[in-house]
This record gives sequence, structure tokens and C-alpha cells, in this order.
Amino acid sequence: MLTGSGLLETLAPRIERAVGPLLLHGGQARRVFVLTSPQIWALWGEAFCASFDRAGIEPPIALFLPPGEEHKTIKSVERLTREIVRAGGDRGSLLIAFGGGIVGDVGGFVAAIFMRGIPYVQVPTTFLAQVDSSLGGKVGVNLPEGKNLVGNFLQPKAVFADIGVLGTLPDRELRAGLMESVKAGIIRDRALVRFMEEHADAILAREPKALERVIAASVRMKAEVVRRDEREGGLRMILNFGHTVGHALEQATRYKAMLHGEAVAWGMVAALAVARRRGTITGSQMERLEKLVYRYGPLPRLKVSAARVLAATGSDKKNMGGVRRFVLPIGIGDAGVVEDVTAAELEAAVKYMLVRARTAGT
Amino acid sequence: MLTGSGLLETLAPRIERAVGPLLLHGGQARRVFVLTSPQIWALWGEAFCASFDRAGIEPPIALFLPPGEEHKTIKSVERLTREIVRAGGDRGSLLIAFGGGIVGDVGGFVAAIFMRGIPYVQVPTTFLAQVDSSLGGKVGVNLPEGKNLVGNFLQPKAVFADIGVLGTLPDRELRAGLMESVKAGIIRDRALVRFMEEHADAILAREPKALERVIAASVRMKAEVVRRDEREGGLRMILNFGHTVGHALEQATRYKAMLHGEAVAWGMVAALAVARRRGTITGSQMERLEKLVYRYGPLPRLKVSAARVLAATGSDKKNMGGVRRFVLPIGIGDAGVVEDVTAAELEAAVKYMLVRARTAGT
Repeated sequence: MLTGSGLLETLAPRIERAVGPLLLHGGQARRVFVLTSPQIWALWGEAFCASFDRAGIEPPIALFLPPGEEHKTIKSVERLTREIVRAGGDRGSLLIAFGGGIVGDVGGFVAAIFMRGIPYVQVPTTFLAQVDSSLGGKVGVNLPEGKNLVGNFLQPKAVFADIGVLGTLPDRELRAGLMESVKAGIIRDRALVRFMEEHADAILAREPKALERVIAASVRMKAEVVRRDEREGGLRMILNFGHTVGHALEQATRYKAMLHGEAVAWGMVAALAVARRRGTITGSQMERLEKLVYRYGPLPRLKVSAARVLAATGSDKKNMGGVRRFVLPIGIGDAGVVEDVTAAELEAAVKYMLVRARTAGT
Repeated sequence: MLTGSGLLETLAPRIERAVGPLLLHGGQARRVFVLTSPQIWALWGEAFCASFDRAGIEPPIALFLPPGEEHKTIKSVERLTREIVRAGGDRGSLLIAFGGGIVGDVGGFVAAIFMRGIPYVQVPTTFLAQVDSSLGGKVGVNLPEGKNLVGNFLQPKAVFADIGVLGTLPDRELRAGLMESVKAGIIRDRALVRFMEEHADAILAREPKALERVIAASVRMKAEVVRRDEREGGLRMILNFGHTVGHALEQATRYKAMLHGEAVAWGMVAALAVARRRGTITGSQMERLEKLVYRYGPLPRLKVSAARVLAATGSDKKNMGGVRRFVLPIGIGDAGVVEDVTAAELEAAVKYMLVRARTAGT
């Protein structure tokens, strides 16, 4: 994973260093495909292709995925694999996922299953994708029955996170993405919490140095956790901080009312409430962390009842065999997994969150 | 991999030995799914469930795939994964593929991608699946553009090949499956060639001991080759003996005129012709091996022109970057891969095959 400015302009040689030469013996070119969204391609397609032109390599063949969770489907995967075959793709082809988290998830899954696997490279274009979804090797799509129910584990050959591309990211998406960094700080990096408290203005103004610091810390945290637990045994569970209630909110609102980061932000508020009641954080720690979450808001209001949210937690995919796993922060910069959160504790936390959604942070 | 008689009747305890207890703590049962065809389930479903009943475990939830290559699609995979979710499947679930090669390929792929992978067990019911497709970990489905273009590598936790189940296998399918054993003998096992020459009557009469001997030798050969080369670098290529022209025949006849084993049988005849011209086999070896192929026929007549077959070899997925890889036997019991078979050599071989299809073996 490489984070920096101007990576897009030097992509072709960087990719060659990661996956090997794009021009094969006898002048035959390796087929390179890029999966992207029409919007990103209109903004950044030219910059993306420039380094291929300069290297005398045919620019990648563009494949498109329209934005929106509703296209993260098996149907899209089928269409894309067929397009790759028809464009001459084979086992030696390379796929570049150039877009946000959905493009990365779908592109990675296409790479994982096309001819039983071809190499792929991530070039994430959203803050969230740069700090989170392009890492860890989880790829896949949704079913109508739930998110990410079909997929694979496949590590990209390289991840190039160009901070310059964030310049055209909508403000709301940047803020939602930053929630992953807030999460990273709370569960694993006390210094990141302090940095995000002290430099909120610079970060939200997208000052490259500030963004680079936040991205680097977030990525380091996730990479370390994932490296130590690639297939989700134990430690990796802590990355789900805020996700039990966050997923429930997304499900209860059918993934339409808010961005993933916003749902996780509310989920973190609920989890903080459980932690406070259990005493794994103090009252002043809770106040400080809640304030940090809201600093990167505004968060959307919640037009959903406690009962619906609670019902939705029951079908959370992360709850294996019905056990209600829950990630709780321990002070600031540490976290643990508990399996004995009661229905009453959860209810109190969800109600607290709904009260806060009326009175704060929105 | 276990081959024998009566395995079906003792399946539940065998599966538990391979994947762990099916009854979890607190009496909670692991959800077990079985993917099968309506035909197989009607014939063998009761026997399949009996051992679960005896062990006091809920019988597996049956999912169905109608027979035929036309159902080996992404669409079927989507339907099946959705059925599994709706029936309460989760990461702890187990999938058993109980059927022929298509059920195994589709079932294995569903297991590989459902929630990014759940364990699966193969219980192959055709000769071909018992000696070939249930082994090696290749799983996947077709695209309209070609066979097996989408898939994964995933090893089953166990393979139980019950010879008793072959009792209801149609004769033509048995004969087509035996071509894989003929192939195994030619490329790697001279003793198997002799056994299949000397005991053809017993094998075709499905005498358990004779079948067991053939299956065991075929499986041993494939397992050894696959173990030494899991991801298809070099050695594993020899398993494609007969497949260059075999696949072309299937494609040229749109997979409707013949079974896979029948196409491979004709493909072996073509490959023998190339080998004979190059001198890697003698004239009498060629005669002997061709006779063996026809002994396990009849093979279907070929209503296709040499030109169409030759055109179809050009799009053979196994030819990376346009190189025409070809597996040639070296004497009896050995084989090698060459990459320099000329268009003229291939044409001569295909024409020889078409002549033989009019005069012999059908």
C-alpha cells in the first residue's frame, strides 16, 4: 500500500513494479482492464491513462460500474466477466479497481473468480476506500437478503492511494470516510484520536499533509490487525467496532438513508453507551469520544424506532450461531470483544443513540 | 478421498470425522445443506439421509440443480446462495455436493463464495466425478462465452466415492467416465492400461472389485499430479491430454452432441496421431491405445468439419497468450507438454480423427 500525491500520474511503472512487465515477450501486451465509475472516469480517466501512454503501453480497457450499492450484485459480476472475455481477457490479464469501496469490492471479486483468479490492483478514490475497503482482501457482492453475503478473500497485488484524487470527493463522503479513522483511533491508536481532535479543520479542509497523516495511521492500524488475523478468528473482530448497531441501522433503513460511515458513527455512539455502563470507559472518556464523532459530522437524523433497530441486530451476519458479539472500547486506544451483551443493555444503548440523534451531532 | 461400497449408509459419522461435530454446544445443530439433482435425490435421497437419522442429527436441507450444462451458470449460483441464506445458512454451515461433475463444480463454487467460504464435502455419484471432477479443487461455472470461465480453487474437506451409487448410472455415462481412466493410464500408469485391457468385461459389468481398482488408480494418479502442482504451473497440464481437440469438439458442437468423456476420447485419438507423427509413440503403441479407447466406446459419430474443429482450438482457454499447448504421450504411461505443434500437424491429426470416426470406434 502506497499513500501519497501524484501517484496517478506515475501509475504504469508502479504497477509494473508490483505485478511484472505489461509488455510480454514478442511485443505482446498483457491485457489490462480498469473497473471504474463513469463519474470517476470523466474526472480522472485522462490522468489515469497518461502514464500508460508515456510508457508506450496501450491504456487499460475501461469497464464501468454505475455508482450505488444496488449495482453491487452478482448480476454486475456476470456482466463484467463476460465483457472481459469478449475483450480478449485471459489468465494473464490484470484488473485495476479504480473507484470507491463498491468498485473495489466488485472488482476484487471479479478478479478472484475470473478464470479462477487473475491479479488485481486497487486504486481507491474515496477516503473510505483508501483507509478501509481497499485493504484486508475482502471482496464480494450483496444478495437481496443482505450485504456482502457472497465473496472471497483475495489480496490485491498493490494498493495506490492518491490523495490528490480526494480533491473531487463530495464533502459528505469525506466526512463519512473519516469515521473509519475515528474508529481506528478509538480501538487502537490514542495518538490518532488526539491528532484528529487537534487538526480537525486542516483535515476537513483536505490539507494533504493532514490527510496523509490520518490515512497512514488508519491504514497501519488495519493492516496490522488484518495481518495478525487474516481470516477473522479473533483480533480482526475489533474492526467491527460500531458495526453491530451500524449494520442494524443500515438494514432498518434499507441502506438508503445514510452512508456506511454515518451508520458506523451512530453505531459507535451506541457502543460507547454500552461501554460506559459496563465501565470499560469513564464518563469523561465517553464525552470526549462522542464529541470527536460529532466533530466529523453532521450525522444524519435517525427516523427509525428502537424496536426496528433492535430487530435488525438479530440478523447481523457477524453474529455466528446467534451469539451477540459486540466490540467495546477499553479506555482510549484499546478494545475487546464480548459475547454476553444482554438484550436490555443493547436496548438502553440504542435508545441513548436515538436521543442523541435528536439532540446532538446532526 | 475414500472409495468403497456402502459409504452412503455411514455418511454422517464420516462427515463428522472430516469436518467436526454437527451438533454444537447447547444442542444447536450446524446447518447442513446438500446440493443434488432431483433424479439422484429420488434414487438415493433416503439412503443419504439414513445415517443422519441414526445419529440423531437433522437431515441436510436439500437444494436442487437440474441436470445439464445449461444450469451450470452464475444465475444458478445466485439462486442457491439466496436459498441458503433464507434457510438460515451462516458461516458455520456445511455444504455437501451430491451428484455428478456439474453438481460438484457448482456446489464447490457456492461453498467457495458463500460468506466468503464455507466448508464443503463431495459425494460424487458418477464415475467421471469419482475419478476426476471431485478432485483437484477446481470449482466454478460457465459463461455463455465459454466453459468454466468463472470459478475458484477450493479443496473439499473430504470426498466420499460410493461405488454402490454407480449401479444406477446410465451405461453411456459410465463409458464416457471410463475415458478419464484410459487417459490416466496412458499419461501416467502403464499397469492401469494393462488392467483396463484385460478386464474390460468386468469393468463394464460394474463388478465392484474391478471398478474399485480402476477408480483407485485413476484417483491416485490425479491426486499425485495435483498435489505436485496445485495451481497449474506445469505438471498438471498433462491432465489435459486429449483436451485441446476434445474442447474444440465440444465447442464446435455447442456441448450438445456428446459427453465430455466422449469428446476427450476423440481428442485422445487426435493427440495420438500427433504423437505418432512426432515419434513419441510407435505405430504399434498407437494401435494398442486406440483400440483401448474404442473398447470403452461406442463413441458418437462426428458431424463436424475439420475446419470448424480447427477454428475452435484457437479459442481454447488453456492456450495462454495464443501459444498452442499440446499434451503428447511418450510411450505408454508417460506424457509431456509441447508448445510448438504447428497448424499443419493439428490439421492432419483432426482429419485422421474424423476418418476414424467414420470407420472405427462408433
